[in-house]
Amino acid sequence: MATQANSVPHPTVIKVDPFIPADQQRGLHNRWHPDIPPFVTVKPGDVFKVECVGESTFFLVKSGQCVIGTEVVDDAGEMQIGLVLRLATMTVLSSIFAASDDIRDVDLSKVHNLSGPVAVEGAEPGDCLVVDILDVVPFEKMPWGYTGIFELENGGGLFAREFKSRACKAIWDIHGIYASSRHIPGVRFAGVSHPGLIGTAPSAELLATWNKREGALIEAHANAVPPVAFAPNPTGAHVGQDLPDDVREKIGKEGARTIPGREHGGNCDIKNLSRGSRCYFPVFVKGANLSVGDLHFSQGDGELSFCGAIEMAGIITFKTSIIKGGVEKFALKQPIFVPSPIDPLYSQKLVFEGISVDYHGDGKQYNMDATVAYKQAALNAIAYLMKAMRKSIRFCLELTIKHMRLAREQAYLLLSAAPVESHVGAVVDSPNACVTLAIPTGIFDHDIMPKEEGLKKLDFGQCAIRSDGVL
Amino acid sequence: MATQANSVPHPTVIKVDPFIPADQQRGLHNRWHPDIPPFVTVKPGDVFKVECVGESTFFLVKSGQCVIGTEVVDDAGEMQIGLVLRLATMTVLSSIFAASDDIRDVDLSKVHNLSGPVAVEGAEPGDCLVVDILDVVPFEKMPWGYTGIFELENGGGLFAREFKSRACKAIWDIHGIYASSRHIPGVRFAGVSHPGLIGTAPSAELLATWNKREGALIEAHANAVPPVAFAPNPTGAHVGQDLPDDVREKIGKEGARTIPGREHGGNCDIKNLSRGSRCYFPVFVKGANLSVGDLHFSQGDGELSFCGAIEMAGIITFKTSIIKGGVEKFALKQPIFVPSPIDPLYSQKLVFEGISVDYHGDGKQYNMDATVAYKQAALNAIAYLMKAMRKSIRFCLELTIKHMRLAREQAYLLLSAAPVESHVGAVVDSPNACVTLAIPTGIFDHDIMPKEEGLKKLDFGQCAIRSDGVL
Amino acid sequence: MATQANSVPHPTVIKVDPFIPADQQRGLHNRWHPDIPPFVTVKPGDVFKVECVGESTFFLVKSGQCVIGTEVVDDAGEMQIGLVLRLATMTVLSSIFAASDDIRDVDLSKVHNLSGPVAVEGAEPGDCLVVDILDVVPFEKMPWGYTGIFELENGGGLFAREFKSRACKAIWDIHGIYASSRHIPGVRFAGVSHPGLIGTAPSAELLATWNKREGALIEAHANAVPPVAFAPNPTGAHVGQDLPDDVREKIGKEGARTIPGREHGGNCDIKNLSRGSRCYFPVFVKGANLSVGDLHFSQGDGELSFCGAIEMAGIITFKTSIIKGGVEKFALKQPIFVPSPIDPLYSQKLVFEGISVDYHGDGKQYNMDATVAYKQAALNAIAYLMKAMRKSIRFCLELTIKHMRLAREQAYLLLSAAPVESHVGAVVDSPNACVTLAIPTGIFDHDIMPKEEGLKKLDFGQCAIRSDGVL
Amino acid sequence: MATQANSVPHPTVIKVDPFIPADQQRGLHNRWHPDIPPFVTVKPGDVFKVECVGESTFFLVKSGQCVIGTEVVDDAGEMQIGLVLRLATMTVLSSIFAASDDIRDVDLSKVHNLSGPVAVEGAEPGDCLVVDILDVVPFEKMPWGYTGIFELENGGGLFAREFKSRACKAIWDIHGIYASSRHIPGVRFAGVSHPGLIGTAPSAELLATWNKREGALIEAHANAVPPVAFAPNPTGAHVGQDLPDDVREKIGKEGARTIPGREHGGNCDIKNLSRGSRCYFPVFVKGANLSVGDLHFSQGDGELSFCGAIEMAGIITFKTSIIKGGVEKFALKQPIFVPSPIDPLYSQKLVFEGISVDYHGDGKQYNMDATVAYKQAALNAIAYLMKAMRKSIRFCLELTIKHMRLAREQAYLLLSAAPVESHVGAVVDSPNACVTLAIPTGIFDHDIMPKEEGLKKLDFGQCAIRSDGVL
Repeated sequence: MATQANSVPHPTVIKVDPFIPADQQRGLHNRWHPDIPPFVTVKPGDVFKVECVGESTFFLVKSGQCVIGTEVVDDAGEMQIGLVLRLATMTVLSSIFAASDDIRDVDLSKVHNLSGPVAVEGAEPGDCLVVDILDVVPFEKMPWGYTGIFELENGGGLFAREFKSRACKAIWDIHGIYASSRHIPGVRFAGVSHPGLIGTAPSAELLATWNKREGALIEAHANAVPPVAFAPNPTGAHVGQDLPDDVREKIGKEGARTIPGREHGGNCDIKNLSRGSRCYFPVFVKGANLSVGDLHFSQGDGELSFCGAIEMAGIITFKTSIIKGGVEKFALKQPIFVPSPIDPLYSQKLVFEGISVDYHGDGKQYNMDATVAYKQAALNAIAYLMKAMRKSIRFCLELTIKHMRLAREQAYLLLSAAPVESHVGAVVDSPNACVTLAIPTGIFDHDIMPKEEGLKKLDFGQCAIRSDGVL
Repeated sequence: MATQANSVPHPTVIKVDPFIPADQQRGLHNRWHPDIPPFVTVKPGDVFKVECVGESTFFLVKSGQCVIGTEVVDDAGEMQIGLVLRLATMTVLSSIFAASDDIRDVDLSKVHNLSGPVAVEGAEPGDCLVVDILDVVPFEKMPWGYTGIFELENGGGLFAREFKSRACKAIWDIHGIYASSRHIPGVRFAGVSHPGLIGTAPSAELLATWNKREGALIEAHANAVPPVAFAPNPTGAHVGQDLPDDVREKIGKEGARTIPGREHGGNCDIKNLSRGSRCYFPVFVKGANLSVGDLHFSQGDGELSFCGAIEMAGIITFKTSIIKGGVEKFALKQPIFVPSPIDPLYSQKLVFEGISVDYHGDGKQYNMDATVAYKQAALNAIAYLMKAMRKSIRFCLELTIKHMRLAREQAYLLLSAAPVESHVGAVVDSPNACVTLAIPTGIFDHDIMPKEEGLKKLDFGQCAIRSDGVL
Repeated sequence: MATQANSVPHPTVIKVDPFIPADQQRGLHNRWHPDIPPFVTVKPGDVFKVECVGESTFFLVKSGQCVIGTEVVDDAGEMQIGLVLRLATMTVLSSIFAASDDIRDVDLSKVHNLSGPVAVEGAEPGDCLVVDILDVVPFEKMPWGYTGIFELENGGGLFAREFKSRACKAIWDIHGIYASSRHIPGVRFAGVSHPGLIGTAPSAELLATWNKREGALIEAHANAVPPVAFAPNPTGAHVGQDLPDDVREKIGKEGARTIPGREHGGNCDIKNLSRGSRCYFPVFVKGANLSVGDLHFSQGDGELSFCGAIEMAGIITFKTSIIKGGVEKFALKQPIFVPSPIDPLYSQKLVFEGISVDYHGDGKQYNMDATVAYKQAALNAIAYLMKAMRKSIRFCLELTIKHMRLAREQAYLLLSAAPVESHVGAVVDSPNACVTLAIPTGIFDHDIMPKEEGLKKLDFGQCAIRSDGVL
Repeated sequence: MATQANSVPHPTVIKVDPFIPADQQRGLHNRWHPDIPPFVTVKPGDVFKVECVGESTFFLVKSGQCVIGTEVVDDAGEMQIGLVLRLATMTVLSSIFAASDDIRDVDLSKVHNLSGPVAVEGAEPGDCLVVDILDVVPFEKMPWGYTGIFELENGGGLFAREFKSRACKAIWDIHGIYASSRHIPGVRFAGVSHPGLIGTAPSAELLATWNKREGALIEAHANAVPPVAFAPNPTGAHVGQDLPDDVREKIGKEGARTIPGREHGGNCDIKNLSRGSRCYFPVFVKGANLSVGDLHFSQGDGELSFCGAIEMAGIITFKTSIIKGGVEKFALKQPIFVPSPIDPLYSQKLVFEGISVDYHGDGKQYNMDATVAYKQAALNAIAYLMKAMRKSIRFCLELTIKHMRLAREQAYLLLSAAPVESHVGAVVDSPNACVTLAIPTGIFDHDIMPKEEGLKKLDFGQCAIRSDGVL
């Protein structure tokens, strides 16, 4: 008989409130350090939930002039009219419409807000922690997320320099398994929901290795904008637990920043670490001390715009087990995983190629550089999508140009957020690495395949921009 | 009524003989140049076949002490015994067993042997040439192919330096849609059969651009081993047509080498340009002048070992059409394509991650370098597979070490040839690009999934090595 | 800024309590009739949720000696010991262990408990109601479901007669996207979660047609056990709304039973009407009056055991739109649909064939009967799976026989609940229809493929049986 | 070195000539009987080829007034004009255009022409014969096939009675992995190429069982048109080997007809027994005596029109092995198989439902009859597709009606030949079995999804009809 007694939810071992600043909450931390104690301990075999603020609330530390969420204007058409009227009414508009000022002003010293650490009983250094990611869902009360383009000078992104990026944003409505956006109409896709960031705690030795090698890189590129890497930084560091001052200070001073993925996992932003996947992590400290955050409703391979996934707050469900001595058994230098059987399947794809020549820029030949090749493939895809975007009638040249930039930014956001796949074609045919980027055509309401008559123009509306109108 | 009159095969517009040296055959060429005239002309809508020597016959220029094909020893066990007896009997062995001397001694100035050019009536610069790759099959009489590891000093490969590569080889038997190898037993997979190399002819301007930018790179890395790029080189140049001497000389002097992929397609080695795919090429010269070669029965993303696909000789079936002005309509800077509905589907995969830190080497931190990340993922996969390989009892330390190297080489060959998928995870989380490499578990006879008890050891036999026994 | 104001959940338009008998709840009904008024009205484009008791609570009308849920014994081994001790301790056991008495005693006059009707503004007869099934999830507090085998004399099932079915049951634990069962260990699969029952309300004419044609069938098979169809029956009828007595009486007297699917949809038990699918329903009454229930976490094609899916209580999320005149536009005689992109993908399958000869029974030849063929395929699969089940040592013959029966019942339950696929091979090769049934091998922890050495024996534990020990 | 010596094709153990009547060829037979001796013997592990005339040449016994093949008119438009002029010019037309007289006049006593038997060394009754279907391709010289609708009185088909079928035909051009047809333009799909018919030889006991049970059915439906089953019939029987007269006579008198599939496999017409699949056959006689024929380039689940696949002549490649005692090990009552990893993947599908009520006919309620349900789903799909067909302007009512019939016949042919999937939804919800039929939308050049504005009309041209113009 179904009774309340026998109907017990899986326990939530870390609870958060997405409406309270992360640095005021317990169970969150934003640095990697072996001395951060476990916030909670679970047994192998337990099914448990962890709540995450994701990165959709790190903006909360800012005052409220910007808008994320469902109350913003629903009609991209209105927004376009708004643009036309911009010179006269910008002050008004900025208080009505979604704007991207939050993106512009983000304080990146505070990212990422990780839930954890969760210790697993019996895990020892050298073991393999098997983690079943059983589900990843948004909070029921927050069925939305967003994708952002950071400013060149604050965060950047893959094309920050090429596009001289100004802050832009698309808000996505989450309707069950699907996302769609008022800022990129005509598109709907199933989410490959996953944690952008998940990892075990580093040992002191591993942490030292990270800091040393990244320090060397920073030193070699001292004035890069955006920076090439991020050194430990006590400012903004947060560990939502009661800690002795010296421990807290040590964590702030030594703790690795969460931006890059590393040998323990971390911010790998692999879209296929999705709900239903099984992951095998190396264990570096007693208990393994798993932390997780930066939940994504969806993301494309590459996560181009850096804040490129659909960032959401929500809940992740886990089950763990331990394989003793797994690091040696499986030669684990970094996690391995088995993808989910329910990752979205869109069989028809339009694939773009790129090689390691910057032919979208200065034409320079690189030597077997897959990153450059990836960028060309992505730029080819963006150029193609822009051919499928209807241009609005504009009153003045200035706005037409800006509209074109917005179309580009929308394509950039779309490739960042949709379940786009990027394959390494070949990395041996000197000097050109070849990388492909595949867009599933089934995510579009309209046909975007190449046709004799050219591409059908779609109305792509307009993404959210800065309230001061700067593009 | 089925009659011989109404039962007409699709015409073969270029015929080759895989048993005759390529440079003695008409309809083949091995440089890219706008002045190479079309060897044959087809109409849009025609279905036609083109025969290719692939790269399995470029060894023919060598004398015959090495063996590729089906008569070689079937039992890897014998070969292992052979190894043990090596010191005494190497001379005998080298005349009996498959050896990799052909790989060791390959003359790379002669690659690749392309069939073509095929002109398409009505194609003009600025058009898009739509090419349906309708089928790719081996010659009926040659149901085999091979995968090779080039020597560090002659050709190299992704891990030529790390592995100090000596020539190795696996011969694959092609059984209908499947490949399996006496040199890597316990594995069988369906081929993603495709042309490694397919492209339209460059215009004079485009060719000049290539030569200029690659020349600059060569100059900047003057003494690199293996070289970073390949300058035009009249030695070994071949155009299997009657040409005035000055034209032939010009082609030799200016013609772009076929090793890298470029804006026209070329040697992109994209496994999903497979039979059933539809490709959209930019047209740079009147007639488009399509050439094709380097047929692969199968290949993994990345084609690690450079000669990494299953190289085969065979037949490709095409159909073409023209979209006028397609370069502008689709913003084509490089080909785009739609993959085939029959690419092999293996849903369960074991995925390895890599970041842009050379943790398998000197530990150096690279800046968002997807190539380095790809290499780590591949090395992680190789290390894992080696855990699944049974070690034989050996009489002396020296041979045990070598056996370990062979296991590594077999894993290297397998990842090169099997339908492995490599995704760009993220290229924005500074400083670490993250790349994944996925091995379909269904290609193994045995279970290679991580287990509590560790990995079950498989007998991976042994690949073909140099006849002088140098490893 | 994320605020409580802009973070609003999708509204739940019908709420239920799975712990209260369905016939005491508003918003539920268990007959199809045009005079059941809409319980709630939505607008096209609204995203909304509907809660369903599913069929996991219809047992609530029984007293509480049986157990469904998570507190029951976790160890199939204990249960087997229990069986051995059965004669002595049955009274005790029946109060401790999960038992299937609820299944045995189910009152089928009360099924199914549908949530609804939901009217959609603007829908008129002749329109097509487009229904996006955006999500289907269990209640957070009830992460479990069950699959049952009805008794031959009360409900039956595909093999009720062949197996002389006694009540059995497997309880499934829902762990995120996966189900596994203490009663069928060694198996885990991703759910194809869907409503077993969803449909628009019939018009009076359509209802009359149903009653007439089904009445004729019942008349022709007057004493069939189990019955061939179910006539309207006021006993057990429920409409959870305030209704005039005459309307209530009319609904009870005329209302179509919910057991079969019909032209409006209804209890089609199509597993691919899953979360992410888009369905097109014919509209027969103003407002369309959509009702839904019988949520399944998973089901195999065929739903063999009748109560064969993983029955669960939970929440379904919808979005609707209307296509005016869609019945004519699409020649709709019954719903059509587009499956979800996230239905589980298990590429490797083991497929069983069946033909329309009852070779598992009396050997009779049927004439192109796909149902008979389906049954043979299923019986072949069950026989195969039983070869993969370890037999326990037993103290007496009697129990061994019963154990064999239980293995059969477990295979029967598994094929009912797992994402098994059944295809109609051919229905034209007189006299034998051919039907296949495919088991995804990836749902097993162990290898169940045919091997030279025969099948590896798995421990399949034991399903829940009647508390009186009758098998 | 690639040499002619080491480059040996897989041997072809049975060769046929598709231009010579089957009954004049050796290695072919058209009855199942244990006394048909093996035509050839292979060893386990051998890779070998078998040529098949398929069913595309059984028409050869007819005189040549009908046309199959590539010389027929390419333009469906011409054919339509032809129809309009029919009364005046039928005599002329019948000699010019493709006509379906061959289908009308087919002598079904001669089907099917099987290549074999092939004995496998060491196979004994009770063993399991593992058969790898490594490839299935058309003859290079015959890159075409056809799909036919038999006349009601000669062969019939699923809708022979409903449609009062007259002979119709679509000829398909095979372009590598794809088929397209001048008779159903706007459609192209990848083939699921397979043998319609493959099986081991029956033992004398099994043959007797077949003849007894089918004889009883025939007796019970003595005058059915088309017949419900086919008794042994010496007329038309053929065994292409030297046999004593008494053996030949016995085979003719007792030999089972090849039309239905049975316990040994046979004419199951399962599309997924395709190239790349692995099949496990029960062995009933020494050597197993495998025979194969009726090659299909493609087929939909159900093979509706009976001659419903794309029939082709061609070559099948096999490899076999033996599992001793496999019948017992795997409880084999009928073959089981593992599908191919390269079966075409079209993720987006439009799915039609059907229940066991003949609502397209007299409205009769059937009792859980999956065949009736399948028929409704197929008729729903045909009705839908007809909504997507453009009607031509016609001069007279008579021809318009006929054109509508032709559209229906084209949809019927298309569903028979394309990779349509039909699932058994549920067969337990009395009285209605529910069956679905899924059309992959990616096979159409145009969008056939349901739209607000109704369906876009496609030009479906016209299929080949009888030369006397009777529809």
